[in-house]
Amino acid sequence: MDNTERLLRSLKADAMLTESADLRMYLTGFTSSFGFVYTDAQESIFFTDPRYAEAAKNALSGSYIAVEVAKEQKSVLDYIKSKKIKHLAVPLERLSFPQAELLRSMKFKLCDSMPAFRDAMAVKSEEEISYISRACQIAEKAYLEFIGEIKEGMTENEAAGYLEYLMRKGGAEDRSFETIVAFGKNTSVPHHAPDQTALKAGMPVLLDFGCTYKGYCSDMTRTFCFGKGADSSFFEAYEAVLSAQQLATEQIVSGISGRDADAIARGYLQKFNLDKFFTHSLGHGIGINIHEYPNLSPKSEAVLRDRMTFSIEPGVYFEGKFGIRIENTVMLQDGKIFDFMKTDKKLMVL
Amino acid sequence: MDNTERLLRSLKADAMLTESADLRMYLTGFTSSFGFVYTDAQESIFFTDPRYAEAAKNALSGSYIAVEVAKEQKSVLDYIKSKKIKHLAVPLERLSFPQAELLRSMKFKLCDSMPAFRDAMAVKSEEEISYISRACQIAEKAYLEFIGEIKEGMTENEAAGYLEYLMRKGGAEDRSFETIVAFGKNTSVPHHAPDQTALKAGMPVLLDFGCTYKGYCSDMTRTFCFGKGADSSFFEAYEAVLSAQQLATEQIVSGISGRDADAIARGYLQKFNLDKFFTHSLGHGIGINIHEYPNLSPKSEAVLRDRMTFSIEPGVYFEGKFGIRIENTVMLQDGKIFDFMKTDKKLMVL
Repeated sequence: MDNTERLLRSLKADAMLTESADLRMYLTGFTSSFGFVYTDAQESIFFTDPRYAEAAKNALSGSYIAVEVAKEQKSVLDYIKSKKIKHLAVPLERLSFPQAELLRSMKFKLCDSMPAFRDAMAVKSEEEISYISRACQIAEKAYLEFIGEIKEGMTENEAAGYLEYLMRKGGAEDRSFETIVAFGKNTSVPHHAPDQTALKAGMPVLLDFGCTYKGYCSDMTRTFCFGKGADSSFFEAYEAVLSAQQLATEQIVSGISGRDADAIARGYLQKFNLDKFFTHSLGHGIGINIHEYPNLSPKSEAVLRDRMTFSIEPGVYFEGKFGIRIENTVMLQDGKIFDFMKTDKKLMVL
Repeated sequence: MDNTERLLRSLKADAMLTESADLRMYLTGFTSSFGFVYTDAQESIFFTDPRYAEAAKNALSGSYIAVEVAKEQKSVLDYIKSKKIKHLAVPLERLSFPQAELLRSMKFKLCDSMPAFRDAMAVKSEEEISYISRACQIAEKAYLEFIGEIKEGMTENEAAGYLEYLMRKGGAEDRSFETIVAFGKNTSVPHHAPDQTALKAGMPVLLDFGCTYKGYCSDMTRTFCFGKGADSSFFEAYEAVLSAQQLATEQIVSGISGRDADAIARGYLQKFNLDKFFTHSLGHGIGINIHEYPNLSPKSEAVLRDRMTFSIEPGVYFEGKFGIRIENTVMLQDGKIFDFMKTDKKLMVL
C-alpha cells in the first residue's frame, strides 16, 4: 500500500487532492514546481505540466500513481467533478483564499487532509531515514571544514555563504534553511539574520545550519569561542546547556509526549535558574520540511514514536550579552534516541 | 504622505490590514518574521511581537507608523473590531483558508488590497533604486570573480554554492533566489535545479543568479562555453539571443505594454525561426520580490513606466542539446532603459 492509499483511508472523504510541493513530493517522491495529486478509491493520478511529464512518468513507472498532463488547476477540478466526487480532502491551511473560493463555487464539500499528512509524514521510512542521515553527515563534515578555516574579519554573511558552499561541495542539494551565523552579542538573538558584523578575537560564535539530500533536511547548531575572552558566566551557561542537551538525548523515549520531552531539558536548566532564558522549544520534527510534526515544546501533546526524526536543541539567551544553543538531529529507534550526529559538543576555544 | 496612507486612499475600504512579510516590509521598511500593519484614516500601527518591538520602534521613530506589541492575530483583529471597521482591505491571494474563515466569522467585509500593492510597488523610489543598483553591482562583481575560478570537475551544486558565497562575501545579505547553474545539456532546461553534474571541457554553462541588498533583489544570467566544443548552431543561436536582448534594451520605452516589450525580442527571434524555442517571458518586475509586477510577456497588458525595474532575459532552449539565456536587470528612466549592469554580454569561450 503506498502513501496515497494509506492517507485516503485515514480520511472521511471520497477523494483527496494535494497541491503543496512538500506534500506532493511525499506522495510521489518526485520534485516539481507544479502539480496536483488526485486519489480516490479506484485510482491515483499525478497531474503535472508538460515540462515534467516525461520525468514524472519515468520516476513513477511501476507505482500505483498514473501521470497525466494538466496545465492548470481548473482542468484537474473539472476531472474530479466528472467523477461525481462530493467530499474532497485538501490541506486546508495550505489553500489560498482564491483557491478555497474556486473549490466552494464548484460545490465540493471540503475536509482537512493536513492532520493526516502531519501524522503520516512524522514517522519515517527506511529510505527517508537514510536521506536524513546523509544530510546530517554532509552538514557535520562541512562544519568541521568550516571551523578549520574561520578567520578574524570574516563577516557573518560571508561565513554563512561559505558554510553553505562547503555543504554543497560535500554533496548537498542545498541548504535546508537560511543559515544562522551570529558573532558576539548577536548570539543572544535566537534567530539572528546574518549581517555585516565582522569576527573579532574573543567573540562567541553561534552557527545554526543544515542541508538537504534527496529532498530531506538536516539541522545542527554549535556555539564556540573564537579566541579567549569569554567570562565564567559563559562557561557555566555552556556546561548547563550541554548537560541539558545530553540529558534529553538520554532520557527521551518512545511513548512520551513532546511536552514531557521538553520538560527534561527545561527542568534541568531550572536547577541553575536558567530556564527563563530558554525562550524557545526543545525541538521540532525534521523531514522534507525543516520544521514539521512533532513539536517538543511545553504545550505539545504529540506522542513521540519510533522512526520520528527531530531536533534536540536547548539554548539560553542573555540580551545584549551572549547566547548558547547546541543542537543535533536525532530519531527514535527501538524506544530510544539514535543520534545522527557524532560531532563533539564540548566547548571549543578556537 | 507615506506608503500606508497612499495605499489606503487608493482602496474603497475603511481600513487595511497587511501580514505578508514582503508587503509589510514595503510599508514599514522593517524586516521581521511576525507582524501586522493596520491602517485607517486616523492611524497606522505596526503590531509585532516582543522580539521585534524595540528594533521596530527605533526604525519607525519619526514616521507615520506607531508600534504596538501583539503576540497573535486574534488580538489585532479584536482591536480592529473595537474601531467598528466594516470594510477591510487585505491581500486576498495571500490569505490562507483558516485566516479567511476567521475574518469572515468576525463579520468583516473583505476587499482585495493586492492590486494596489502590485501597482504601488512596481514604481520604485530613489532609495529602492539605489538598493537594487547595489544588488546588481554585487552580483556582477561576484560573477567576474567566479568565472576566474571555475574549474573542470566542479559540480553544479558546488558552483551554485560558490557563486552565492562570493555574492555574500561581496556584501550581499543573501541570494535573491535559488541560483541556477546548468552544465552541458542541462542548459536546455530553463529552470534546471543544480545537481551533481560535473563540468567538463566543451560544455556550455548557464548561470542565473542574483542577491539581495537591504531587502532588494538583483537578477542576472550569462551563458558561456567552458573550452572549445560548441558547434555553429550554438554560436548562431547565441548571436540571435544577444541581439534580441540588446534590441529590447534599446527599444523598450516608457508607455508601451509588457506585451509590446516582449514582442520586440520575440519578433527578432522569429526572423531566425528561433521564436518557438523562446519558451518563457521576456522579463518580470524586480524589487523586494524577485518576481513582481509588471510582466513582460505575450499576454501582459501592464503599461511600463518610469522607475519600474525589471529583467530583460530572452532565451532559446533545444531539448537534450543546449540552452542560451542572457539577462540584465534594468529600469525605465526618462522614458528609456537604464541598464544597471555593465558586464560584457559577448560570448566567452573560457
